[in-house]
Amino acid sequence: MSSSHAAHPDRLLPAEPGTREIARRLLDHVEDLPIISPHGHLDPAMFTANEAFPNPTALLISPDHYLTRVLHSHGVPLDALGVGGHECDPLEAWWLFYKHWHLYAGTATGYWVEQEFEHVFGINPDRLGAGDRAESDALYAELQAILERPDFRPRALAEEFGLEVLATTDDPLDDLAHHKALAEDPTFSPRVLPTFRPDAYTKMYLPAFADNVTKLIDVAGGGKTGYAGYLEAMRTRRQYFIDHGATSSDHGTHTTNSQPLDDAEASALLEKGLRGEATRAEAEAFEANMTYRFAEMAQDDGLVMTIHPGVYRNHSASAFERYGADVGADIPFQMEFTRGLQPLLSDFGENKDFHFVMFTIDETVYSREVAPLAGYYPAAYVGAPWWFIDEIDAMNRFRSATTGTTGFSRYSGFIDDTRAYCSIPARHNTSRRVEAGYLARLVAEHRLTEDRASEIIVDLIDASPRRVFKL
Amino acid sequence: MSSSHAAHPDRLLPAEPGTREIARRLLDHVEDLPIISPHGHLDPAMFTANEAFPNPTALLISPDHYLTRVLHSHGVPLDALGVGGHECDPLEAWWLFYKHWHLYAGTATGYWVEQEFEHVFGINPDRLGAGDRAESDALYAELQAILERPDFRPRALAEEFGLEVLATTDDPLDDLAHHKALAEDPTFSPRVLPTFRPDAYTKMYLPAFADNVTKLIDVAGGGKTGYAGYLEAMRTRRQYFIDHGATSSDHGTHTTNSQPLDDAEASALLEKGLRGEATRAEAEAFEANMTYRFAEMAQDDGLVMTIHPGVYRNHSASAFERYGADVGADIPFQMEFTRGLQPLLSDFGENKDFHFVMFTIDETVYSREVAPLAGYYPAAYVGAPWWFIDEIDAMNRFRSATTGTTGFSRYSGFIDDTRAYCSIPARHNTSRRVEAGYLARLVAEHRLTEDRASEIIVDLIDASPRRVFKL
Amino acid sequence: MSSSHAAHPDRLLPAEPGTREIARRLLDHVEDLPIISPHGHLDPAMFTANEAFPNPTALLISPDHYLTRVLHSHGVPLDALGVGGHECDPLEAWWLFYKHWHLYAGTATGYWVEQEFEHVFGINPDRLGAGDRAESDALYAELQAILERPDFRPRALAEEFGLEVLATTDDPLDDLAHHKALAEDPTFSPRVLPTFRPDAYTKMYLPAFADNVTKLIDVAGGGKTGYAGYLEAMRTRRQYFIDHGATSSDHGTHTTNSQPLDDAEASALLEKGLRGEATRAEAEAFEANMTYRFAEMAQDDGLVMTIHPGVYRNHSASAFERYGADVGADIPFQMEFTRGLQPLLSDFGENKDFHFVMFTIDETVYSREVAPLAGYYPAAYVGAPWWFIDEIDAMNRFRSATTGTTGFSRYSGFIDDTRAYCSIPARHNTSRRVEAGYLARLVAEHRLTEDRASEIIVDLIDASPRRVFKL
Repeated sequence: MSSSHAAHPDRLLPAEPGTREIARRLLDHVEDLPIISPHGHLDPAMFTANEAFPNPTALLISPDHYLTRVLHSHGVPLDALGVGGHECDPLEAWWLFYKHWHLYAGTATGYWVEQEFEHVFGINPDRLGAGDRAESDALYAELQAILERPDFRPRALAEEFGLEVLATTDDPLDDLAHHKALAEDPTFSPRVLPTFRPDAYTKMYLPAFADNVTKLIDVAGGGKTGYAGYLEAMRTRRQYFIDHGATSSDHGTHTTNSQPLDDAEASALLEKGLRGEATRAEAEAFEANMTYRFAEMAQDDGLVMTIHPGVYRNHSASAFERYGADVGADIPFQMEFTRGLQPLLSDFGENKDFHFVMFTIDETVYSREVAPLAGYYPAAYVGAPWWFIDEIDAMNRFRSATTGTTGFSRYSGFIDDTRAYCSIPARHNTSRRVEAGYLARLVAEHRLTEDRASEIIVDLIDASPRRVFKL
Repeated sequence: MSSSHAAHPDRLLPAEPGTREIARRLLDHVEDLPIISPHGHLDPAMFTANEAFPNPTALLISPDHYLTRVLHSHGVPLDALGVGGHECDPLEAWWLFYKHWHLYAGTATGYWVEQEFEHVFGINPDRLGAGDRAESDALYAELQAILERPDFRPRALAEEFGLEVLATTDDPLDDLAHHKALAEDPTFSPRVLPTFRPDAYTKMYLPAFADNVTKLIDVAGGGKTGYAGYLEAMRTRRQYFIDHGATSSDHGTHTTNSQPLDDAEASALLEKGLRGEATRAEAEAFEANMTYRFAEMAQDDGLVMTIHPGVYRNHSASAFERYGADVGADIPFQMEFTRGLQPLLSDFGENKDFHFVMFTIDETVYSREVAPLAGYYPAAYVGAPWWFIDEIDAMNRFRSATTGTTGFSRYSGFIDDTRAYCSIPARHNTSRRVEAGYLARLVAEHRLTEDRASEIIVDLIDASPRRVFKL
Repeated sequence: MSSSHAAHPDRLLPAEPGTREIARRLLDHVEDLPIISPHGHLDPAMFTANEAFPNPTALLISPDHYLTRVLHSHGVPLDALGVGGHECDPLEAWWLFYKHWHLYAGTATGYWVEQEFEHVFGINPDRLGAGDRAESDALYAELQAILERPDFRPRALAEEFGLEVLATTDDPLDDLAHHKALAEDPTFSPRVLPTFRPDAYTKMYLPAFADNVTKLIDVAGGGKTGYAGYLEAMRTRRQYFIDHGATSSDHGTHTTNSQPLDDAEASALLEKGLRGEATRAEAEAFEANMTYRFAEMAQDDGLVMTIHPGVYRNHSASAFERYGADVGADIPFQMEFTRGLQPLLSDFGENKDFHFVMFTIDETVYSREVAPLAGYYPAAYVGAPWWFIDEIDAMNRFRSATTGTTGFSRYSGFIDDTRAYCSIPARHNTSRRVEAGYLARLVAEHRLTEDRASEIIVDLIDASPRRVFKL
């Protein structure tokens, strides 16, 4: 263990000494529990191939838009970092990261990288940015050597991390062969589960919509055509996912609108969408109908439904053209849940066997809408802070905004939602420290006994995700 | 006094020892002051009848949607709790509450119940949820015995609570006989005041609108018909309320819109509404006009006007059908005050004898709209945190969001807004502790002297509600 | 130095002793650095004339709508305070302020006035409000005597304050003679720079629009007419400002909308606007087009572009009629940045030599929109808290809401935005204390080393405004 602040046993805990002492004790109950990760974006092929990661840049920089967007905001071109499939000199990209390391001070990404260096690679993170190009190259070489070690293969790391469950996010037509292979492999203990994510088949405003849907109906429509075939294919593929271990479907909807359409109207809209003639408003109406229909299907097949609305995708047109999607140019916009979800929750929210998890990237809806909904409907759960708001202070604001209304039991459990494999332990550890700090404050303020807080923190970290995601 | 954390003298105060010490001293100035409750939902008949409360379930569970919604979110059916007039086995309902007590950890309701047990019933709240059915039944029996004691009749409790003023919320056609009887009773010292709440007569989208308005005009229209009779009846009934002690009118408007209509237009809309032909937009336009008109009437008759907008009522259609209104399925939605109230405040806001109190359940408007409005207009006051945001952390956010702009003098004073009689002392005590903690922080940060903070806390707790509500 | 809390060396620092000690050390690095003020509303003629301030009321009360609005909200008529050019008895106005001093407890204005008294005038602020009319008059006389001293002339104070850069806000047709005179005066060292503020020429809904634009085209259109002349005049005047030291343009837009129009459409709208026939929607479309066009011009001429949207100006019609604009009746409304700025940022945001600073008076956009935009686009910067949210707790919320996403390097630097000359040191000192307290917390929580925090605070206070405003 190095002398960096990332190595400090009290890192991220509240400063007030009395509160910190309580937090330490609470953390002890959960720090070493296994990792349950019910939502993320890793590729399951990583575990079937189980090859060494090619190099530090390909592992840590290029695929992580949390990290590359910081460099980009300082004028570093994304292609120099290997984003969007662009070839880059990995040593040069590493140097760009290394020399700009000071930019990450105070950021969520900065905290994660520090933890990752300290606790995964065993390297003092204070070396980042502290030297010249030669030292950058030396650090890269050191990391490279680590990556070539057998104990740094994906499977070995999974054991090392204590990964018990890891959900991926998958296309409805994916054959899930990797998931199947992993499930059948007695030498690999983590459960790697698929998640049904049908966005590419519900958003008529995406260029590939018609091709996607045509293929979906052909493959899985059971001989039916049009809207009937479309719904049938969705049901069929959901069942296929369930048969391969899936417990949830995920929906990156544009808004929360869940207004159903009657079949004739939906059918007509789908035809328009397939001909590329739907207006934006028609496309959003169809998407809203499908949000409702997926909830309806879940009444039968039992898949947990998670919703991630409110993101303006590919805000920078030139970046989208050069690098494609998911490069850090997705920007949140204002959300509302109360009216949008009324049709869905009014019809299905009273069913306690239906689990509906609401994620938001707009903090203002926590106390105003999400907690009041989850504090009433048996089906509704408060999703963990996500994306720009999964950093330390924001996680504290989340707790403070929701707990008074819902208590602790309507919480989804932490999700890491990551593409950065080696940051998983850091992310979960951060969340455990934030929970310990928050609960410690309630104990210090005589709002909760420490005994009760000890039970709650174990429930939050371990039982909540299992219960809510039906694991 | 028990050993529970609810009995701790420092409960709910800030953890930092220096700040806590200041907070203790500030709390000393106000902890025993009488309770002024200028807005709530108790039934005045409770005090004229002065009968023993029937049983713990009927007193503590069935009427309190704050409490029942938590159980409902965990799948407990509302009828098993006696909600909405459904018959229930009170011992069974008590057991449902008792065994789910852990769900209330960290909630506002949980804190209130603990205080209520500790300080009203003299029972250690840690007994809740700690045993089996036999212990639940025993606790119920113990409470039942307490409720049968003469010092637990409503009037005796009012004295015990130090209740000086209690406002109820009343229908414009209520005869206010109970208020009259109480005012004339020399043996009962608390002032129980009616509040004029005309919502059922302004919202055309409610089923009973036409019947209500027809009756209102018949009874109080002074022989006039249509819109003229409607306005006349409102003025007459306001005066009747004033004659029976009312100092304020309360308006649970859908939005803040206050755009006035000319008489011809309003008159035509009212006719459409009475025929059941008004669109939702027309109904909201008429409601907005009435918000303006009530402010206009207040220029003459001096009633304080309070506004409580932004709630989606009866969000769950099936719950509404089974249990009726006010069962916990009311969900906030996004509010805006600046544009909606511009007509009203621009015309009447410069009149310092007009008092207009803005409550919100959307926290985002505090720093953006409510504080800037109350910090400019002599008529405008910042309403206390209400409903989902009257818990400890939310009350602190409220102070922090408004004080920098308005100081302390534009504040309505705390309101408990409750149907849960025995929670009144707990709610007011919580508010006093939060104010003490907030002011203590300002003193500890050298932003305020302790002498000044001592004056301010007395003003906040005692003088503000008297001044703002003209008590 | 007096014994008031405004004199306390730890004022405004966090209460927790360990954190406070760190904060003190961090503050030491920046407390005496020069003041860089890249945005404000002082009159440059003040420095060319360099006359004594006429009296305490004219200096401290009448021009400061932060201060007069508090008195107004308590029913003090604005004319009695000399607002909007109304004549007042300055001693009487002073007494109105003096005797209502208690209203300022806990307000941003209160903290500034205290600091100003303690550190600029050397008078114990606890004397405010502590006596009768005679003591009020005596304090006034004491201040008057101070204002007559040669070391209280504007230039002497500028040196005393350590003012290195002060930007004013100026009309595009201003001849900038005062700026020129000051720049050429070797005896005056502060740089007083103009800022190009074209709002009066872009908002068709303002009564003077047609006159303003006609004059602009006549004077600076280079012989062109209509929209072509209008654009030419804007370019010409921007260059004139640059030649006189300007480094930025400022835009008090109604919303963030930046949708460009093609030339024919813009031209037709301009003609309608000049004839006074544009609808509100058309006027806002033209304003949006100009937001885009100013960004486009900045690609060529390099002016930093700052945007201050989201204020409902002159909310009280009667106050506007009696006192004119800028009297405290400007109220924020809900803002959105993501969609509104998409056209502008998508086209120009990838250019790191373009600097675009986003100010907001709606806090909800910090974590949701402003930080995500500034954390991606090389051109985009997070503007400092402004107006109602430049008080201590709000500044802490700002840091907490943005840092996790952007770190510290996308920050504009503090702006005081003031008309109250003598409050400048207090405002900047407050900001330095807040930064020290925030960074100290990160150090105490082992999120940052103290060495790194020391570098960051110097960068925030000194380097950021120079870098972002190209000073």
